[in-house]
Amino acid sequence: MTGRSPSTPFDDRARPDVAVVGAGPIGLAIAWRCAARGLRVVVHDPAPGSGASAVAAGMLSPVAEAYFGERELTGLLLASAARWPAFADELTEASGAELGYRTEGTLIVGSTGDDLAEARRLWAYQQGLGLPVTPLRPTELRDREPALAPRVRGGALAPTDHQVDPRLLVPALRTAAQRAGAVPVPQAVRALSEVDARVTVVAAGCGAAALTGLPVRPVKGQILRLRAPGGATPGFRHVIRGYADGEQVYLVPRADGEVVLGATVEERSDTTVTAGAVLRLLRAGVDLLPELAEYDLVETVAGLRPGTPDNAPILGPIPGRPDVLAATGHHRHGIVLTPVTADLIADLVTSGVADPLLTPFHPGRFVAAGPESGNAAGPGTRGSAGRGAGPGAAEVGGPDRTTEEDRWS
Amino acid sequence: MTGRSPSTPFDDRARPDVAVVGAGPIGLAIAWRCAARGLRVVVHDPAPGSGASAVAAGMLSPVAEAYFGERELTGLLLASAARWPAFADELTEASGAELGYRTEGTLIVGSTGDDLAEARRLWAYQQGLGLPVTPLRPTELRDREPALAPRVRGGALAPTDHQVDPRLLVPALRTAAQRAGAVPVPQAVRALSEVDARVTVVAAGCGAAALTGLPVRPVKGQILRLRAPGGATPGFRHVIRGYADGEQVYLVPRADGEVVLGATVEERSDTTVTAGAVLRLLRAGVDLLPELAEYDLVETVAGLRPGTPDNAPILGPIPGRPDVLAATGHHRHGIVLTPVTADLIADLVTSGVADPLLTPFHPGRFVAAGPESGNAAGPGTRGSAGRGAGPGAAEVGGPDRTTEEDRWS
Repeated sequence: MTGRSPSTPFDDRARPDVAVVGAGPIGLAIAWRCAARGLRVVVHDPAPGSGASAVAAGMLSPVAEAYFGERELTGLLLASAARWPAFADELTEASGAELGYRTEGTLIVGSTGDDLAEARRLWAYQQGLGLPVTPLRPTELRDREPALAPRVRGGALAPTDHQVDPRLLVPALRTAAQRAGAVPVPQAVRALSEVDARVTVVAAGCGAAALTGLPVRPVKGQILRLRAPGGATPGFRHVIRGYADGEQVYLVPRADGEVVLGATVEERSDTTVTAGAVLRLLRAGVDLLPELAEYDLVETVAGLRPGTPDNAPILGPIPGRPDVLAATGHHRHGIVLTPVTADLIADLVTSGVADPLLTPFHPGRFVAAGPESGNAAGPGTRGSAGRGAGPGAAEVGGPDRTTEEDRWS
Repeated sequence: MTGRSPSTPFDDRARPDVAVVGAGPIGLAIAWRCAARGLRVVVHDPAPGSGASAVAAGMLSPVAEAYFGERELTGLLLASAARWPAFADELTEASGAELGYRTEGTLIVGSTGDDLAEARRLWAYQQGLGLPVTPLRPTELRDREPALAPRVRGGALAPTDHQVDPRLLVPALRTAAQRAGAVPVPQAVRALSEVDARVTVVAAGCGAAALTGLPVRPVKGQILRLRAPGGATPGFRHVIRGYADGEQVYLVPRADGEVVLGATVEERSDTTVTAGAVLRLLRAGVDLLPELAEYDLVETVAGLRPGTPDNAPILGPIPGRPDVLAATGHHRHGIVLTPVTADLIADLVTSGVADPLLTPFHPGRFVAAGPESGNAAGPGTRGSAGRGAGPGAAEVGGPDRTTEEDRWS
């Protein structure tokens, strides 16, 4: 809030401190956190919550999603998941809305010997990182979820991998953001020049590519929503992530009877639902949990995740525009990463100092070193967040950073 | 038109000759045929075309659907299918609308040895009836449809089994009926006492049970609509009826790229779409025609067919009400049976004489013989249309028929 240049009271009052582009969970949570700190915030989006979050399952799974070669990402996922309980409490308090936040934990299961071998290799890696994943004997597995198919040969419990309902999260965040003073602007932003604010935060998911030149690409996901018959609650309580004959699916049970069954990961930018994807998802889901065959199939839908070259998000000032912060590229992790993204971006806006957690995710990692560093790289650029900090990442603000005055001008 | 009782000119003009209850294909075609013969016709339906026809695939398959023990039904199916070419021409002429009528014929195929054994047993029966079904060698099958899966081991051609698009048929029939003078009444009929006409035709599908007491019950069918990607036409031309690992499905290709994939036959009265049914249909469909996996899944829907105890339609005056004609219970055959039903019911209304083709399908077959013959039987009654004419069937007008004056009073 310091260092703003003098202007007429009218202009000063009219110009927002922060303009957020994109009212998905990331953008809305940033807006909420910034507004709650006393900043004047506007949020541009003609259709809030209509992007990837409308399709997302809402798993908060840093442990089950801790994959080989993504240690920095895993660290961020864990940091964000650790914030989720308090974030959920605060948001429920601030919005008065339910989030569908559930803490029964996640079971990871496998059908064939090959499926289990693949799962066990990953559990060993996750245990090597000190993460809480506990292999279960078949009887222990069935004690926890009697509805699992007899052919499910083994599994493990990740007790700290929770879930939230993204379709409840977004309206709760809108309410909280607006109660804190953030002002919605129901218009699309086609270019950053249309936005007038001290700081612009681009939280536009796949739309960030056109606005910033950052290498964010759509990664299609198809997902199904089922419903237990007759208004019953689903016959299982845990999130179930399964390997079934080489197909990976997840099943997320909601208290209202809904079960989310997902999801494909496709390098495509259309949102059509294909017969083959629905077949694969249903086959694997019913293989793992036979009772699903009796469930109503209430929705088949596809969405586009904002992917990046290294599968990690892009968080921080973009090259050549220190007044523009990217908060995009969350790919399959947008929901779990919402609290840490919101907190750290709000910290950065307020203090001008970047938390070290952000370092590996700096937009500068996609920029070639040298005098042309102000140009964003194309989609083909290989980044490095999964293997270490990229160029310019150590110093938040990027290569073009000069002074705070400059950055927030 | 003879024998009407004297009344005031005003009343006579206001009272319709025929009130049709139900504006599905059957009711609309009857209304069209009656209006075209100069009768004053009204058609009661708050939502024309919203019943079984909205879900139906539109196969005109008397040969492939000629099953053991249903000889009278097969005769009616053949008679109606023979009328379809002229009916389609007349209707296109009368309505100016396309019907999606296609004559490429039907292929019946099987995957496993068991599937083919079952199919061959039926072909032998059909050939024994003198019906045109010709087994093909695998190379002949692939010459006709190269897109069939390699695992499809054999098949047969039913060249006279055609198709029409029910979603085009209904609007065409509405136009033709209205142009001929039939008047739509967009209100539901809850009891026959609400209808005032010389003759009432109950063509209300499953709704006929409540109106007439006839043993018509809902038989649920779930069906999928796929679409070839990118606006292409489907990669096959024939209707394909397949046996795939014990699952029976059909695939109906349309010129506009749509493929109908159906259908379940379930003794249920709900219209929910279940995960298990979608899985079974997609699995069998993709097994037979692998390219379907790349198709868009654009619709999953369930409908209720009007089933009867003997799977045959109910056509003719209902017991105790010679002025009320049933035209319902068409089960899985409503579209193919539309021309013959419309012609013969219109004949009956006009001349008072029933075509012998109607004899096995008289409503009286579900009524116990004896003095209580005026009471319609309950849904548990076993009829006999599949095994010969039932009681009262020989004499159209039923046991209560006395004189024409009486019947049309």
